[in-house]
Amino acid sequence: MLNISMLVKWVPVETSMQDTYEMPGHLARRFQQIAVAVFLAEVEQAGYDLTPVQYAALAAISGNSGIDQVTLAGLIAYDRTTITGVVDRLVQKGLVERHESSRDRRARELKVTPAGRETLSGITPAVEAAQRTMLRGLTQKEAKELARLLQKAIASGNELSRAPLRNTTTS
Amino acid sequence: MLNISMLVKWVPVETSMQDTYEMPGHLARRFQQIAVAVFLAEVEQAGYDLTPVQYAALAAISGNSGIDQVTLAGLIAYDRTTITGVVDRLVQKGLVERHESSRDRRARELKVTPAGRETLSGITPAVEAAQRTMLRGLTQKEAKELARLLQKAIASGNELSRAPLRNTTTS
Repeated sequence: MLNISMLVKWVPVETSMQDTYEMPGHLARRFQQIAVAVFLAEVEQAGYDLTPVQYAALAAISGNSGIDQVTLAGLIAYDRTTITGVVDRLVQKGLVERHESSRDRRARELKVTPAGRETLSGITPAVEAAQRTMLRGLTQKEAKELARLLQKAIASGNELSRAPLRNTTTS
Repeated sequence: MLNISMLVKWVPVETSMQDTYEMPGHLARRFQQIAVAVFLAEVEQAGYDLTPVQYAALAAISGNSGIDQVTLAGLIAYDRTTITGVVDRLVQKGLVERHESSRDRRARELKVTPAGRETLSGITPAVEAAQRTMLRGLTQKEAKELARLLQKAIASGNELSRAPLRNTTTS
């Protein structure tokens, strides 16, 4: 009797590297890699030491003073189990403080320190430069269209991700 | 004398969460998160246990039998220092084998095993379904345009990333 697995191994795999390179999943990873590298380079050049996620968390806490970690995780679409590490590093850097909540003694309210506020103001030009650099190959019209299409795809895929964005607090 | 840092801390930070959400860098991270989650879900549902990067590596080794790890890292735009872990897991799963190179005894050639070839063939429908799912919010025309714009942005940003894609081998 023919064993199908013996046949399968001789079937050439149709997926060429070119096919892989054109897959949305591959493009998503490459664009994200470039975005992170560009962000880190611009921010470092400006004299700051902050990752994209740390920046997103700092900006979110600044705009929503007193929020707790779970809400923060939702706001920046970050995993609840790993958000603690992000906040820890912001606290170590003196940019964020954890305060005991007035409503719930077990909860911790997050607040940006004066140094954190200074960092946010000072880092903004570098963050904006990074956004331009990561799209430097596109015309302005193309960059706008890319943002629109990504937003549309993300809106429809939000619940599919493990850490959906929950834009529930005022901002 | 006025201390500028004392002033800066009272300046409201102009970057709202809405601004952050519209930043290409944020969109890149969200789209990548969704792409990974969708890939893992589709592949698991099809009975396979493979991450997007493991899949990319397996496909690349299959199309370039005998390549070494450094070339593989370039082919899939993956960091040289972390590619070893990816290959290790493919070897542990019995999908890839390391062979001593005929030209260089210190180098190891990578080859897909029969089980790896079977996995690649079997997993393809799930991988393709994942690509469709991650773009389910877009029309076909929009999906095509998104891929084109991402490819254009990536091509121009390739050298900016820490692990540039090096498409040097035949495929």
